[in-house]
Amino acid sequence: MKRTGFAKADCPVARALDAIGDWWSLLIVRDAFDGLRRFGDFQENLGIAKGMLTARLRKLVELGVLEQVAASDGSAYQDYVLTKRGRELFPVVVSLRQWGEANLFVRGEPHSVLVDAQGERVGRLVLPSKAGKPLAWSDTSVKKVARKR
Amino acid sequence: MKRTGFAKADCPVARALDAIGDWWSLLIVRDAFDGLRRFGDFQENLGIAKGMLTARLRKLVELGVLEQVAASDGSAYQDYVLTKRGRELFPVVVSLRQWGEANLFVRGEPHSVLVDAQGERVGRLVLPSKAGKPLAWSDTSVKKVARKR
Repeated sequence: MKRTGFAKADCPVARALDAIGDWWSLLIVRDAFDGLRRFGDFQENLGIAKGMLTARLRKLVELGVLEQVAASDGSAYQDYVLTKRGRELFPVVVSLRQWGEANLFVRGEPHSVLVDAQGERVGRLVLPSKAGKPLAWSDTSVKKVARKR
Repeated sequence: MKRTGFAKADCPVARALDAIGDWWSLLIVRDAFDGLRRFGDFQENLGIAKGMLTARLRKLVELGVLEQVAASDGSAYQDYVLTKRGRELFPVVVSLRQWGEANLFVRGEPHSVLVDAQGERVGRLVLPSKAGKPLAWSDTSVKKVARKR
């Protein structure tokens, strides 16, 4: 897939997809939210080839989404943990989850669920107006950047 | 990229990424939210090869994200419009936008913005608890499906 120029797009959606919009990167980020930190743990959970995982982790570190830290158990390993920039991907992962839950499972089919500290299932993501009123997609529009001549 | 079995994953994130987690599909969905309907308009806006666009549109129709309808101008063309399932991708597109805005532009660099009907910029997506309290990622955890033995 050819990727030309979207890293410099003036649309933040395009730029975000250029940076993290491949399937493996977002699954690695999902696993990091679930507490995985080790190369071997990502590898086992994702069933991804080692070379592919190495490349994706390196890219996520370069991008400032993950950082390498000394292993929490004092061993010689390096752990991968989410940075602030990485943790800000939480709504991306949750929105994918909620769309999947609503549209890609038949009734009664089991799936993992996102719960709060009390074990209650979370609500749906809400897009608020500046004043805090929930907005539907039809209440919004994209204001493009004026093109220089 | 090998994609094995995630269409049947019990993680909704993995299933969602299997379905719509390629770069072009989400950019087509973004354009549909912006009001684009015509093959030629998607093609021009995305700078995507015709064969690639044809394949992606077909997949999005099969998936029930887009549907083909008679052209709004009465011509012989078919328009592509978002279905209910497609419109439910709005938080996915918005979350990518907000992450991109916050992390991939330098200060003062121009980008498109999402505004409400009054032209005010929208707020950040909020994940509410069942009772409506805003949750951070650290307030949540994923409850996995119990494996059958």
